[in-house]
Amino acid sequence: MAKIKLSDYLFKRIQELGVDKTFGIPGDFVLPLYAAQERIGMETVVLTHEPSIGFAADAYGRLRGLGVALTTYGAGGLNMINPVGLAYAEESPLLVISGAPETKFRSNKPQFHHCVKDFQTQLRVFEAVTESQAVLDNPVTAQAEIDRVLETTVKKSRPGYLEIPRDMVNAEIEIQDRVPDTIESQAPTEATYAAVSEILSKLTQAKQPVLMAGAQLRRFHLMDKVISFCEALNIPVVTSILGKASFPETHRNFIGNYFGQFGNPKVKEFVESSDCILCLGAVLTEMETAGYTAKLPVENLIQVTYQEVSVAHHTYQGLDIKFVVEELVKQAVKSKSVKFQIPKIDPEALPDQKPEDPLKVAHIIKSLNSVLTSDFGVISDVGDCLYSGLSLKTDIFIAPGYYSSMGFGTPAGIGAQFANPKRRSIILVGDGAFQMTGMEISTAIKHGINPIVVLFNNSSYAMLKFIDQQRDYYDLARWDYVKLTEAIGGEAVRANTGAEFTDALAQALKSDKLFLIDAILDKDDISPTLKRLTDHFGKKVRAALAQAN
Amino acid sequence: MAKIKLSDYLFKRIQELGVDKTFGIPGDFVLPLYAAQERIGMETVVLTHEPSIGFAADAYGRLRGLGVALTTYGAGGLNMINPVGLAYAEESPLLVISGAPETKFRSNKPQFHHCVKDFQTQLRVFEAVTESQAVLDNPVTAQAEIDRVLETTVKKSRPGYLEIPRDMVNAEIEIQDRVPDTIESQAPTEATYAAVSEILSKLTQAKQPVLMAGAQLRRFHLMDKVISFCEALNIPVVTSILGKASFPETHRNFIGNYFGQFGNPKVKEFVESSDCILCLGAVLTEMETAGYTAKLPVENLIQVTYQEVSVAHHTYQGLDIKFVVEELVKQAVKSKSVKFQIPKIDPEALPDQKPEDPLKVAHIIKSLNSVLTSDFGVISDVGDCLYSGLSLKTDIFIAPGYYSSMGFGTPAGIGAQFANPKRRSIILVGDGAFQMTGMEISTAIKHGINPIVVLFNNSSYAMLKFIDQQRDYYDLARWDYVKLTEAIGGEAVRANTGAEFTDALAQALKSDKLFLIDAILDKDDISPTLKRLTDHFGKKVRAALAQAN
Repeated sequence: MAKIKLSDYLFKRIQELGVDKTFGIPGDFVLPLYAAQERIGMETVVLTHEPSIGFAADAYGRLRGLGVALTTYGAGGLNMINPVGLAYAEESPLLVISGAPETKFRSNKPQFHHCVKDFQTQLRVFEAVTESQAVLDNPVTAQAEIDRVLETTVKKSRPGYLEIPRDMVNAEIEIQDRVPDTIESQAPTEATYAAVSEILSKLTQAKQPVLMAGAQLRRFHLMDKVISFCEALNIPVVTSILGKASFPETHRNFIGNYFGQFGNPKVKEFVESSDCILCLGAVLTEMETAGYTAKLPVENLIQVTYQEVSVAHHTYQGLDIKFVVEELVKQAVKSKSVKFQIPKIDPEALPDQKPEDPLKVAHIIKSLNSVLTSDFGVISDVGDCLYSGLSLKTDIFIAPGYYSSMGFGTPAGIGAQFANPKRRSIILVGDGAFQMTGMEISTAIKHGINPIVVLFNNSSYAMLKFIDQQRDYYDLARWDYVKLTEAIGGEAVRANTGAEFTDALAQALKSDKLFLIDAILDKDDISPTLKRLTDHFGKKVRAALAQAN
Repeated sequence: MAKIKLSDYLFKRIQELGVDKTFGIPGDFVLPLYAAQERIGMETVVLTHEPSIGFAADAYGRLRGLGVALTTYGAGGLNMINPVGLAYAEESPLLVISGAPETKFRSNKPQFHHCVKDFQTQLRVFEAVTESQAVLDNPVTAQAEIDRVLETTVKKSRPGYLEIPRDMVNAEIEIQDRVPDTIESQAPTEATYAAVSEILSKLTQAKQPVLMAGAQLRRFHLMDKVISFCEALNIPVVTSILGKASFPETHRNFIGNYFGQFGNPKVKEFVESSDCILCLGAVLTEMETAGYTAKLPVENLIQVTYQEVSVAHHTYQGLDIKFVVEELVKQAVKSKSVKFQIPKIDPEALPDQKPEDPLKVAHIIKSLNSVLTSDFGVISDVGDCLYSGLSLKTDIFIAPGYYSSMGFGTPAGIGAQFANPKRRSIILVGDGAFQMTGMEISTAIKHGINPIVVLFNNSSYAMLKFIDQQRDYYDLARWDYVKLTEAIGGEAVRANTGAEFTDALAQALKSDKLFLIDAILDKDDISPTLKRLTDHFGKKVRAALAQAN
């Protein structure tokens, strides 16, 4: 049995899983881990504030299959609970590695800096928001614990937590043969065959089936298989909101993004008139169903998610989505009898604007669509940048479409560009979210990467204003974002009109630096999707507010 | 029995407790709570990012006796766990009120936006970092739950958590007679008298006693009593690091701040040669004992903390610090026989610098000491601004001296000025911490308050550099903080030399706006205290790093 330092084992396994960079902020309890990863040639992208670390590593993980945040104890780890919660909700393979006080102190009354109640506080907090956890305080079990947390994180695509006391980082551990993985099933079960057979029978007998592609297809690396499947049967495909870009939008079977009442009305009409809706890898949450407005009658619905298949009113449990999809492809390729029609559905028409008129969201989207190629990836925050962004033609689109935390966009755009350096990130972010984490553009500048930031600037928490009404506390402080960007070494221009935006985008494309476009929006302009969304959610909020009087 | 809306009851009780402002960021789940507090004339200071909310409300609470953060669910609440952890560790009365999804949805599978695992996730996380918690999902028990959490927060001076589903905000509740409070004892116990008697006997028989004043004296409103006590016996007084300014520094009995091996050597010498050290309201954590370097022999030590008195090797438990201190005063005033000498201890000498030389920390401290009056309060982040700041003569000094989270200073300085508008906040902050939460100066500008920010700019995580060695990842991105401040509407100047700093401070004092001084520090200049601290902690870190090779 070979002996190896605990941290060497950990970082080598992480490297094997395709990770070449971690994201973090150094702090005393984590310094030995920083030194350890340097030793094997990995480096940490140092951001400015911990919430950003989680978002950056999350986005990296969505593209690479694993993202790693490397943080100090307490003041570091506890400052990224929201991003970890987001990664849990949206099924992102985010691993948090936290330094910690030495094991030898753990039996004492814990009155160390960065400690809250006791040495279990941080673990308890992470237990609430991660899928798997381990405190590596024992060299004998360390390898098994590392393997378990890494495999769970990657294979279940949900966050994991490793806490490593400072005196364990370079402890020698004996490497055993790896215990066979029990997370993934090794072969399809009889239930898998039964489910697949029923799905195909339903689908091929349908008059107008449709496939809804969800985020799990990207998470579980099933995108290619689903392309084969839909081509074999020639089924039309939509994506869910969280699943946007889980199916190539340039594919001839793709007919649009489905977002219930909020999205393109023609896509809604087609999906909701379908007699067989196959949801592949989409969990039908509040957001995936557009606030439960989606009219997807259970009797017409087939849902295939990570470990479950539901057909109308009955459920097959304990299946592995990979085998379900693989079998679907095999069976579909065999049964070449059925071919469906792909309807022609145009994107929702966006109004034109005169070049000299105040800038509108629609113009931003059209301008971006005119330049988007596979050289770019789109990363969005929440707000109208996300909802209008659903109309962008892109094969990479990363956004917190379900959990909906503000502040995700800028750091995630940085993480995404590190994951895939050939893809320049186009970051869509509202001014409210930019005021939370937008200064992270400094990290892009420091590391010499060149995302384009499109700042949807309406000087307010616009969603809240449209859900409710104008109130002082929805107004944002006015920042000169151009001057601000220049103050930290980036390039920026302001666009007040359509023509100015077109011009700004052209400049951004020519620049090889981080480039911010301060897009000053017509104050009351929102996208049709956001209009429908805020009308719906506004009802609930206004009802609650009405009781107040 | 009167009927009242739940939110009216809550906010009226909060008002009765002396709170006139809450701190928050609006979000859909919390909007009815915003409207409810508006209705009774309270307002929320809207910050830019949730971690700042916690810090601002914490500082407000340290001065007012209660601080309130008003946040939305998930993306809001989970984004302030680190500040709440800090408030727990440092015993600050911070109440977090979180909006939440409606009770009627709580029995369903929770796939709402801003939800993580289930509707208990956020509660579980807050249980790990708060003293008391309640989900107000039942009108019958709501009043009792509100009372319990408010009283625990205020009387134990530790964070509390109230989660209020959106449909409960304006629910009618019946107001009962308030249940007698069981947190505070109502009278001194026999054990209290015994403890006090033993303390006084030890003290009056000592040759050279000293009183160490800790943070609990301010938290439990005992500062005046302790002044009477030390005057009665004429005992010399030092403050602990977290307790700085818990005893007036202009008082003739005050001899300095005690920070073990790291602080003023003459104070250390006096305290450690004392034959009776009475720690009043100081919990002897790692930081309070300067990394456990403090030489305070147990046989000479008396510790009076929130619910416990220890005299040498034995302990009285379940006492109330208020009665202990009250009895100490009564007995001391009676026994006028003993009067001790107050030694003359000078502050540690700080080197002078030529006006034209690169700016040094010592010059900042001297300049500030020359202008500090009771018109100001000093609020510090961690790093050398804190350690050098221990030499400031001030009667308000708020800093995370134990938990040591970066990012506290700027938002806390804003919270402090709202708590006490007559005191202009002088915010001391390093550039690493400023890059985390410094943009919160925007909130000061928006609300028309005028703190002075002294930015200790050394372009690095200087503490880490001095604990370890120069490494690339300790270098910070260079920001033009002057231009940055101007970009958001504040005033700022840069100071490269002693003369420039003196001049900048004069300008700041004349300004009625937020004013930032970008104090460019001589790169290798640190205060004597930080030098001693990083030498000590560096040993541990370097030992851990050495194993790596």
